[in-house]
Formats: sequence, C-alpha cells, structure tokens
Amino acid sequence: MRMYDVIKKKRDGKKLTDEEIRWFIDSYVKGEIPDYQVSALLMAIYFQGMDLEETAALTMAVRDSGDRLDFSDVNGIRVDKHSTGGVGDKTSLIVAPIVATLGVKVAKMSGRGLGHTGGTVDKLESIPGFRTDLDKKEFIDVVNKTGIAIVGQSAELAPADKLLYALRDVTATVESMPLIVSSIMGKKLAADDDCIVLDVKTGSGSFMKTVEDSKTLASLMVDIGKKAGKKMLALITDMDRPLGNNIGNTLEVVEAINTLNGNGPKDLTEICIVLAANMLCLAGKGSYEECEAKVKGVIEDKSALKTFAEMVKAQGGDERCIYNTDLFKKAKYSHEVLSREEGYIHSVDTEGYGLSALVLGAGRNTKEDVIDYSAGIILSKKTGDYVLKGDVIATLYSDDLNKFFESENRLIKATTINPEKPVYRPIILGKVE
Amino acid sequence: MRMYDVIKKKRDGKKLTDEEIRWFIDSYVKGEIPDYQVSALLMAIYFQGMDLEETAALTMAVRDSGDRLDFSDVNGIRVDKHSTGGVGDKTSLIVAPIVATLGVKVAKMSGRGLGHTGGTVDKLESIPGFRTDLDKKEFIDVVNKTGIAIVGQSAELAPADKLLYALRDVTATVESMPLIVSSIMGKKLAADDDCIVLDVKTGSGSFMKTVEDSKTLASLMVDIGKKAGKKMLALITDMDRPLGNNIGNTLEVVEAINTLNGNGPKDLTEICIVLAANMLCLAGKGSYEECEAKVKGVIEDKSALKTFAEMVKAQGGDERCIYNTDLFKKAKYSHEVLSREEGYIHSVDTEGYGLSALVLGAGRNTKEDVIDYSAGIILSKKTGDYVLKGDVIATLYSDDLNKFFESENRLIKATTINPEKPVYRPIILGKVE
Repeated sequence: MRMYDVIKKKRDGKKLTDEEIRWFIDSYVKGEIPDYQVSALLMAIYFQGMDLEETAALTMAVRDSGDRLDFSDVNGIRVDKHSTGGVGDKTSLIVAPIVATLGVKVAKMSGRGLGHTGGTVDKLESIPGFRTDLDKKEFIDVVNKTGIAIVGQSAELAPADKLLYALRDVTATVESMPLIVSSIMGKKLAADDDCIVLDVKTGSGSFMKTVEDSKTLASLMVDIGKKAGKKMLALITDMDRPLGNNIGNTLEVVEAINTLNGNGPKDLTEICIVLAANMLCLAGKGSYEECEAKVKGVIEDKSALKTFAEMVKAQGGDERCIYNTDLFKKAKYSHEVLSREEGYIHSVDTEGYGLSALVLGAGRNTKEDVIDYSAGIILSKKTGDYVLKGDVIATLYSDDLNKFFESENRLIKATTINPEKPVYRPIILGKVE
Repeated sequence: MRMYDVIKKKRDGKKLTDEEIRWFIDSYVKGEIPDYQVSALLMAIYFQGMDLEETAALTMAVRDSGDRLDFSDVNGIRVDKHSTGGVGDKTSLIVAPIVATLGVKVAKMSGRGLGHTGGTVDKLESIPGFRTDLDKKEFIDVVNKTGIAIVGQSAELAPADKLLYALRDVTATVESMPLIVSSIMGKKLAADDDCIVLDVKTGSGSFMKTVEDSKTLASLMVDIGKKAGKKMLALITDMDRPLGNNIGNTLEVVEAINTLNGNGPKDLTEICIVLAANMLCLAGKGSYEECEAKVKGVIEDKSALKTFAEMVKAQGGDERCIYNTDLFKKAKYSHEVLSREEGYIHSVDTEGYGLSALVLGAGRNTKEDVIDYSAGIILSKKTGDYVLKGDVIATLYSDDLNKFFESENRLIKATTINPEKPVYRPIILGKVE
C-alpha cells in the first residue's frame, strides 16, 4: 500500500477501505509515514469527509493503536461520561460522585485543559495533595472502595490520537467531524466501560456551533460506540454561555462542592441531574423518572458529597477542603468588571470568556504553561440578566495584578449588551440514543 | 505571521494577500516552516483554488526564491518555448534551431523526464558527447555563436519550486491549476527572455484532460507572464495521442532530425511549423503568414538542420550523428507488437504509451533511475488508422529482453480498437494571447 494512493483516493472523494485506514494509522504510529503526507490526508478528509463506516474504521484503528484497558477487576457496572469540552464545565466532578453513590462505578481517565477549555485533571489537582497519577492497581482499588476514581490519561492509551491531534492542531484540521469523532471515541473505546454518556456542547464556546452539527456528531459517536458493543447515549447541551458562574480550577471545584451541597447555580444543577439520571438509566438502575428522583435524593442527603470527599481522600487529597471550602488557597488579587452600558446581556462569546480566564492564569496556551489554580472568574450576571451602567458583571481573580487589564478587555468584548431581551434557550437541547 | 492562520484562511476559502504568500514561500525556502504545514496548505489550495492575483503573487514569490538569470550579454531578442509535458514531444529540438536560424536567440533551460513524460535534456544527452552542464559564460557564448543553447536547470533557479514540487509529488497535490501555473511560470520568469510561447498539452497524456481546462491554464499563464513584462502567447495542442511516431530519447532525436530534413511525420511537422511561426511572430519578425513561410524555407533548404548541428558541436556533441543517424547506438533487441483485433484505432491512453516506453528503459520512475537512451517505441499505427489482426502496431526497442512482456501488455491495454472510425481532432486546438 502507498500513502500517496490513500491521499489521492480521499482527495477525489472516494471511500477508503477498512484495510487502508488501519494500515495508515498503524504505519503512522510506527513512524513509517511522514507527517507531511498525514497532514495532506487530514486536509483531504476535512474537505471530503468520511462516511459512517470509514469513521468507525478510523475510530477502531485509533483505539487499537496502543494499550487497551482492562477493568475486569472492578466490581459492578462501569459508566463513563465525556464532554466535548466547554467553559466552566465542572459536571464530571458532580455527576461522578452522584452515580457512584447510587451503585454505578466510574473509573475515569480525564484530560488536561488546553486553550479556552479547562480539564478535569487540572481542576482536581487544585485540591491540596490530590494525585491523578495512580498506577493501575491503585486506580482499581480506589474505584472498588469509593465507587469512583479519576486519573490522567496514560501515554500508552490511543497514541495515534496524540500524534494526529498534535498535527491537526498546527495544520487547521481540527474542525472535521470524522476526525473529532475518531479522536474522542478512539480514546473512550480503549477504556473498558459498559456504558458511555456523551455531553455534546453546542454554541460559541465549543467546536459545534449549531444544534444540527451537534446532533450529527452525537449520532456518529453513539452509532460507533454501539458498533463497539457499548451502551451509548448523548445529550446535546448549551455552550452559548459558560456553565455555572465560576471559571477557573479552584473556583470550579468550589462550585461543584456547592452543587453537591444543593446550593449550585440553576443551569449547572439542572444539567448534572439530567446527566446523572441518564447515566444511571443507561446502567439499568430504573426508569428515567426513578433515576432522577434518586439523583435528587443523594444531593439532598449529602451522600454524594460524602462520596466525593472519600474519593478525594483515597487519591491523596485533603478532604477537609471539601467540607470547608475556605481552606482552598485564594488568589492574591481580585478585580470587579463593571458594565459600561445598560440593557440585557444579549449574548456572550463563551470562547472569549474562556480566554479571559486563561489570561488570568487559569489555563494553558501551550502544553508547557503552568496553571495558577486560584485564578479565574466569578460571573455575577449571565445571558438574559438586565444590567445598569456600573453593575458588577464579573469578578476576576489572579496572583498577577498585571493580567487584569487584558482579561477585562476580553470579557467586555465577549459580552453583548443591548435593549432587547434575548430568547431563552434551555440548557438541554436534545438527546440521541 | 503564523502559518496556521495562512492555512486556515485558505481552508476557509478566503483570499491570501501578497504579503502572506511571499512570507510563506520565503520562510519555507529558509527552512522555517515544516513540510507538514506546507502540505496542508497545498491540499487546501487544491480544494479552494487561488484567484489570478494570488496565483500571480505565488508565481513571483517562486521566481524570486533564488537566483534570477541575466542574459543581457546575449545579442538580440530572446524567445523561450515551454511545453507542459507530453509523450513523444520533441518539438524543442526542432523549433529552437528553426527560430535561431531566422535570427531569434534561444537560451533554453530544460528539465529531465520523470514518470511517463520525457525531458529535452535527456534526449540531447543521447547524442554522444553532448554536454548540458555548461557554465554561464559557455552558455552565453554558444547562444551568441549558434543562436541556440540548451542546458539543464540550475539548482539555484527557483528553489521554492523544487521544494514544493517534491512535496506535491508525494501528497497528491500536483493537479492544482494555481500550483501548476506558479511552478511553470515561476521558473520561466526567473530566466531572462523577452518572449515566451507556451505549448499547453491536452488529453490523455497530459495534466489537462479537457480543452476548457487547458484554456484556463493557458490564460492564467499568459496573464501572469504579461504582468511580469514578457510578450506571451500560448497554443493549446492535442495530447490524446503521442506526438510523432517515436517515443524514447535517441529515437526522438532521430525523428527530430528527420523533421528538420523535411521528412517528419505530419502531426509533428505541423505543430513545429505553427510553434516556430508563432515564436517568430511574437519576436516581431513579421506577420504570421510571413513567419510561416520563413519556417518552411529553413526546413526546405536544411539551414535549420545545420544550426542544430552547430549547436550540438558547440555543446560538445558528435555532429556527424546529425547528418548520419545510423551512427547513434541502437538497442540490442526489438520486438513487434501485433494487433489482436481488426478495426480502427479508436483512441489511445497516451500516458499508458509513455509508461510502456518507461518500462523499456526510456524513462525514470524515480529521480535516481538510469536511462537507456536507445530504448523506446516506434509506432506504425496511430489513432484513426485501420488495422487487421496481426498488423504491426508498434516496435519496441530495449537492451533488456525481459522488459518486452510488460511493455507490450501496457501498450495493448492503452490501445482501444473498434469498428467505428474516430472523429478526427486537429493537432492545434486553440491559441491564447
């Protein structure tokens, strides 16, 4: 087989065979195909697309490019939840303890943040002492003991995705449906879960700008997961505004704790209840209504918060922080952003909000950047709220005073205020199963 | 400037600025942009195209990426002729001596053959002693003395094209109008000619499969050449059949000599007269009819043949071969290909004929392959001819008996014989000026 022929075939809009796709992935991982041919193929895929069969073949090839995990030592049914990435998305920290409390195991591998979106691993590491680098035995032990463990992704898991993603990132080939699907699902399927619930974010803070595109992406991923023998379900959720009020690692952990305490913001609480209920339902824990009631119960009686604290302790973290959030390190400085206009917050560029937090030190521009865990933003006003001139829209937090100017400018630029009240868009936009 | 942004802009169908294009070419030649980003951009250009301004900017950037030639020491007006490449195309060997005989200078840099098409430099090197590596002074001296010199392309001429072509060749991005234009014209404009006549080949043996595409390509090149201050003209000519009857280096030189002697095949003679008359006309040597008459005159009185012999001698070659073609080395073996059917030769896949000759040793699959100058094909029957079963269609020549089997198979497969007489297509299909 020649890579030239594979590129030309896709360039001309023809369908690649299973064999061609697997050969390309395997040879690339072995270092037998140069990056310049792979990037040409990626751009051809960007333009010509791939059908379901091709996308599935690419996904399975990515899955099989490295180690496959074995969770057979975990007692009970295993459910994973994956979000396509958004701003202020701390749902994993909330839904995982909830479903674990209700008898479903969550053995989760999570990513770090890059660009305008945060990562669950970074958020957890803002808890003093928390370790995300458990070895396999520790990982399984924590899952069996507390029902949940969350660790960083191992380098041996789906190495083809690491190579491809690094190349896509510098060749403007990230925004391609089959490439997004195979990247997400290739990694997910290399893990050993029974059920997977996907949270496909839609709007100005995510890859998918329209509900239509999100549904297409969700259907593809659900179909491919089922092909691989998983129970699958996807929710389409709103990312035209940040999720909850807090953006930044420590700030998001605190908001997750508040939500597990029953004091979370409305949008975040709602999405977590729906996600958790769907995860339980998929795992066979009853009808949707029954599962929803159970979820609300473990928030109300604080047993989910207790599970979270146990997991934190089992992974080396200081569990006292979970019961007293004042123990978290605070940023040295804060700065209030005031509205310069009067009117409704009509819309926000969620990506702009993510970048505003990144500037403060909450995120990474490149993989080498060091995160300031306490940096971030607390929003006082969100889309649909009415503001007067001089009202506080948000408070910025950072250890570096000099970051406030650029961060405030980005936030103001990303906020559209006008006299018209915006049409309310629900947080849950659809479901694909 | 960031290469990522340039790729994304073109991917999204936007127009690149002069500055962006020049920055990309300059940085790539300096080694500051990796191949994998360039190949992604090339594929984006393949899909999104470039408009005239972008194509012109790319052409000028390629032209300026290395040395510019200076022919100011050549006495008189300088005309170049460039073909987009075909099978059996030995016109340069014929038209250059004709126009030189008529007072126009031809200081020509030519390429080597690759794939199914031959190269003028290889053909000339099949003449014993002929040198194509003259230094600048020798080159100018030969032009001033004989009116014509033909040498290989220097490595310092348009180095961006060399880098880009090598990358396009392995990433399936050769067949892109703006990339073809900038490659051809970038090199041509780095030379120092007053007039350029382009021969845009059309059909199964060339890049351009339709007359429409050829006209688009020709117009682009003519416009860009004029922008750069050259007198320009392009002919669209047929490449749905090989040009003349001989394919292969020595065989083509012999056919060129026969044509200069007035004994050439009809199609080759016709195209050479039209090309040469247009070159003279463009150089201001009279009306087209006057120029055509002059061309016919220097063939008839053998003065063009004499010019060719003088050039061969001046470049170190054995001029006796020109007057007695029996002195050329002959292939050790020959093999007749017989028709297996009765009917008209309805069409031929010209590229297949080129590959049939390549297999015999006449061409190169990779740059490192060594050519057998005497290898090749003499066609006895061409498109439109009626053949009986057992008639000789072609004779194959090679020093290696084992090559005949594959070569014959390719030639037979590339020949379509059926009862219908094909519609005659003229050799000259159009003119763009």
